[in-house]
Amino acid sequence: MEMRKTIDSYSSANLDIYGMLKYCFGWEDQQGKEISGETGKGLRPALCLFAAEALGGSYYKAIYAAISLELIHNFSLIHDEIQDFDEFRHHRPTLWAVWGPEKALVAGDVLKVIADKSIEDFGKYTVRDENNNFELHRECTKLLTEACLQMIEGQYLDITFEKEINVGIDQYLDMISKKTGALIRCSLNLGALIGTKDPNLIRIFKNAGTALGFGFQIKDDILGIWGTEDSTGKPVGSDIKRKKKSIPILHSINSASYKSKRILINIFQKEELLDNDIITVLSIMDDTKSLDYSETLAREYCDKSIDHIYSANLTDESMEDFIELAEFLALREF
Amino acid sequence: MEMRKTIDSYSSANLDIYGMLKYCFGWEDQQGKEISGETGKGLRPALCLFAAEALGGSYYKAIYAAISLELIHNFSLIHDEIQDFDEFRHHRPTLWAVWGPEKALVAGDVLKVIADKSIEDFGKYTVRDENNNFELHRECTKLLTEACLQMIEGQYLDITFEKEINVGIDQYLDMISKKTGALIRCSLNLGALIGTKDPNLIRIFKNAGTALGFGFQIKDDILGIWGTEDSTGKPVGSDIKRKKKSIPILHSINSASYKSKRILINIFQKEELLDNDIITVLSIMDDTKSLDYSETLAREYCDKSIDHIYSANLTDESMEDFIELAEFLALREF
Repeated sequence: MEMRKTIDSYSSANLDIYGMLKYCFGWEDQQGKEISGETGKGLRPALCLFAAEALGGSYYKAIYAAISLELIHNFSLIHDEIQDFDEFRHHRPTLWAVWGPEKALVAGDVLKVIADKSIEDFGKYTVRDENNNFELHRECTKLLTEACLQMIEGQYLDITFEKEINVGIDQYLDMISKKTGALIRCSLNLGALIGTKDPNLIRIFKNAGTALGFGFQIKDDILGIWGTEDSTGKPVGSDIKRKKKSIPILHSINSASYKSKRILINIFQKEELLDNDIITVLSIMDDTKSLDYSETLAREYCDKSIDHIYSANLTDESMEDFIELAEFLALREF
Repeated sequence: MEMRKTIDSYSSANLDIYGMLKYCFGWEDQQGKEISGETGKGLRPALCLFAAEALGGSYYKAIYAAISLELIHNFSLIHDEIQDFDEFRHHRPTLWAVWGPEKALVAGDVLKVIADKSIEDFGKYTVRDENNNFELHRECTKLLTEACLQMIEGQYLDITFEKEINVGIDQYLDMISKKTGALIRCSLNLGALIGTKDPNLIRIFKNAGTALGFGFQIKDDILGIWGTEDSTGKPVGSDIKRKKKSIPILHSINSASYKSKRILINIFQKEELLDNDIITVLSIMDDTKSLDYSETLAREYCDKSIDHIYSANLTDESMEDFIELAEFLALREF
């Protein structure tokens, strides 16, 4: 795969850090032995390539853009895992858990710069327009950089919220529209930009990306609480233990009875949550039907994104592809 | 100053993280109150602007390139401080020491992306060439990204070396040519690229940057051991305590008598160094004349960089400016 080639091209530097990155992508084990482990879902590249092709551009033209998106996504994961003390991803120990936070921090930085280089390169190979100038490449670069900034701003807000009790649902939606939404929106937007010159179509794909970003993150929030260890690699209730103020929890706090609300607030003010606390929180969330609420919301956003794309008048085949992608993102079980 | 404007333009996002950056640059205190504290020396921008002007370009043309360099430098400082547990910079608590490592990590990431945006912008404003195409801008971007990658690779090597006993002087020089050298070399190279089209002159400035990078880091190593707290903000011997394998220490290990060498190796194998150990190391370094050796080496590299620039046949005034800059970098006392 093209992404593997991108990372491999740096390995000549013969630094262990590139071995860390190959481990991160699931291509090698900790000792540098080739494996065929569970890798990431590659959703952002899939969205980008879909958009470029569905709008008449070629799949190949968008491939370096797609790689850049996946590299940026993984850069953010590596740093997020350090910040959140996440010890596992896809059932494997995270980078910092294996090599320590110092080296993992640097590995994330390297990946960001490799993403920058990949963005530079894709101008050269694929998105030069007919006049041989780089206006389109400059636009793509701008879009990616802006998405990256929003993503990091969102990560900052997320860290801040974990220590706050009073987070409004609006504040939360604003945060996820940055932290997760920015890169998903950018994936469709970027692919569209490469696939067509019609500003109306580009806008439609961007809006679809915004809706899909919400759907995806809300589903992620659901899995963070009710996902089983087998499917997500994390124990049930793990987001509760981390006092993460995700959609189901915010909904529960907002719609619980006065008494239950007090209980929830008391629990989330504790330094550390015990198993018993998690059971209590889950039971209150049951009363407030927060799972139903969240699943309906994810479904609504997913439908909204499909409606947007529907208005782009794609071929039936493309439309079916998008529905499949969108439903996977917003309704998946892992 | 232009850099302040760059950071300020993001502050509308009204996120505390931009307050962290203003603190980092010494413009605000922890509470966001304007201060006129000790700020960075701005050496990299100074080198870049010098090169552009000395080679006939205008100072203004290089200003966004200069800002990008300083932003990248500060991004690396923020992450380095987390990795090295440095609690002070310029006599002020570092970002992670005030806000915690999680937020500091994100602040560093944001700064990197602001640097990326600044690199994108400088094409728009300043380095478009007469045919109104962006070839020069693309070259500048490539140079900066490559320097950034080398810098981070160097940081990785540096972390690795702290845990190793047998680091050769060659290995060390290779590491600093990346960690510190890459950005200093890039500063002169970038300024030259903006100032002239003569590949010979650009090469001369690049080579001067390579030499100057060594001179600068070796002086930094000297100050890390013998610099007084008043001038550097760090206690005498602080790099010994951190078991940093810097030039004076490597020289001492390599040239000490068999007995002293054993003592040094034993000390550097300890988990934690006591004050007494530091005194012992300082005394052996005295015997091996490692301060003399290091100062001579720094001076030699400084002279080498001056010789390079001399061959560019600049005006007397420009030559004097460079000598002043180079001597400040390689012979400074803080």
